[in-house]
Amino acid sequence: MSTTLSSPSSDHASLIDGKAFATGLRETIREDVRVFHDKHHVTPGLAVILVGNDPASEVYVRNKAIQTHHAGMRSFMHMLPETTTEAELLTLIKRLNTDPEIHGILVQLPLPAGLDARTVTNAILPEKDVDGLGEINAGRLASGKPGLIPCTPLGCLMLLRHELGDMKGKHAVVIGCSNLVGKPLALLLLEEGCTVSVAHIHTRNPKELAQQADILVVATGVQGLVKGDWIKPDATVIDVGITRITLDNGKTRLAGDVVFDEAVRTAGRITPVPGGVGPMTIACLLKNTLTAAQLLVTGQAE
Amino acid sequence: MSTTLSSPSSDHASLIDGKAFATGLRETIREDVRVFHDKHHVTPGLAVILVGNDPASEVYVRNKAIQTHHAGMRSFMHMLPETTTEAELLTLIKRLNTDPEIHGILVQLPLPAGLDARTVTNAILPEKDVDGLGEINAGRLASGKPGLIPCTPLGCLMLLRHELGDMKGKHAVVIGCSNLVGKPLALLLLEEGCTVSVAHIHTRNPKELAQQADILVVATGVQGLVKGDWIKPDATVIDVGITRITLDNGKTRLAGDVVFDEAVRTAGRITPVPGGVGPMTIACLLKNTLTAAQLLVTGQAE
Repeated sequence: MSTTLSSPSSDHASLIDGKAFATGLRETIREDVRVFHDKHHVTPGLAVILVGNDPASEVYVRNKAIQTHHAGMRSFMHMLPETTTEAELLTLIKRLNTDPEIHGILVQLPLPAGLDARTVTNAILPEKDVDGLGEINAGRLASGKPGLIPCTPLGCLMLLRHELGDMKGKHAVVIGCSNLVGKPLALLLLEEGCTVSVAHIHTRNPKELAQQADILVVATGVQGLVKGDWIKPDATVIDVGITRITLDNGKTRLAGDVVFDEAVRTAGRITPVPGGVGPMTIACLLKNTLTAAQLLVTGQAE
Repeated sequence: MSTTLSSPSSDHASLIDGKAFATGLRETIREDVRVFHDKHHVTPGLAVILVGNDPASEVYVRNKAIQTHHAGMRSFMHMLPETTTEAELLTLIKRLNTDPEIHGILVQLPLPAGLDARTVTNAILPEKDVDGLGEINAGRLASGKPGLIPCTPLGCLMLLRHELGDMKGKHAVVIGCSNLVGKPLALLLLEEGCTVSVAHIHTRNPKELAQQADILVVATGVQGLVKGDWIKPDATVIDVGITRITLDNGKTRLAGDVVFDEAVRTAGRITPVPGGVGPMTIACLLKNTLTAAQLLVTGQAE
């Protein structure tokens, strides 16, 4: 999945093509869904709940629904008005928790004011919590026990495993410490046997720490934070950041937390933005939905 | 709580006296228990379950019971035969979960063969899980949400807060990656705003990493692993390890994971073994039992 950039210089990083990897993963999932259905006569079903009318959220849930459908799974959309109460939302989740046609439940965040994301997320049955954001799945991850893993960290891990294979003893530096990406990924990399350092807003010497990284993961949302001289020669760089920036000519493009044009000269392998980690997130949601269905129906992932 | 060692040299570390700190903490808890009882007419109660006849475990649970009693709380001991089935144990835990006189439940580990520690630990109501070892409390800790924190990491954190105050931006290196100490402590130090690195058995350069630590926590069980030259000048060193070693004269003594006589010449502050972290563990169990009682009775820690 690594392709060397077409460049006159031979000392350029190879590109980690998350888009191609995600496409392949979705094809594998589609085939696995077919096999699962043939064997158990069950089609995995994903329920996505959107409360309110946030335009970005509407785009996200539509993409999730389309890709779920394309993978041969059932997609159920619940689009609720802004005025939905927490009690109404919890009642819906309880019903979906017991619905045998539903194997994954996802509540699109952020929620409108007045709805508590933590209460709502924790109301999802852990076995159907395909975003992996509930406290029981977080606890399983922190304890090294099997559970559903948040989609973006899972996507990063799959790319890293594919690129590097055994990561035991490698020094992984994770910049960014969110519950959504940085912390779960740090715990996953510990499970892989990496030495793990986590840097964040209070870190005094992020550059010095980054320079020690065999694996550098950046998930801060600060566009262009990591320059070329932060990167150890031949390191593997995973850029989770994605920011829309305006160019001098007035056009816009997406950019990551890493200054790609600099990093590519030092790193051994690097994810581009766009086309790196981004496409992995929904593919991993589909993967989690299939895993949840397998576990709910057969008691084990297949 | 730091006392400079009586030594001719002025460049010795000050001693972090965990024994004195734990004594003070237990006195505070005893007073808080009295105030809580006066206000709510409830005495915090801790149930300790021991299955089988492991002699070391018998000593531990007896110490826990005595200190619970000395703190003015109720102590309930359940000593069950080696032949106890998992179903019987789970029935007892369920009964204790609903018993209003019980605010903390602890199952002494290890359990005899045939009893699954994970199943048993997760059966304890998270609000009464005063060892903080269930997956819900692990998930709360990993998500930065309030919960009951495992006793030894909590003890380390209390000593560090007392010694250093604000730890934001300090580089904490944790050597050891267990669910019991290393991982929860790493997550707690992230919450404090430390940059956190975790090293373990697969780490290739633990010495080089340790040398960067403003705060060095060692919890490996490998006696004498950390030598003096692993330690950054003026670092704060917390030694969680405790191993009984035999001296040349045939006598035995307790020793930590850090070579104390060397480390004390470089570190700024250091916990001795014994008398450092050890005494904090039971004191923090009492603290957690009081916290659990406050939360169960009033809905908030006081």
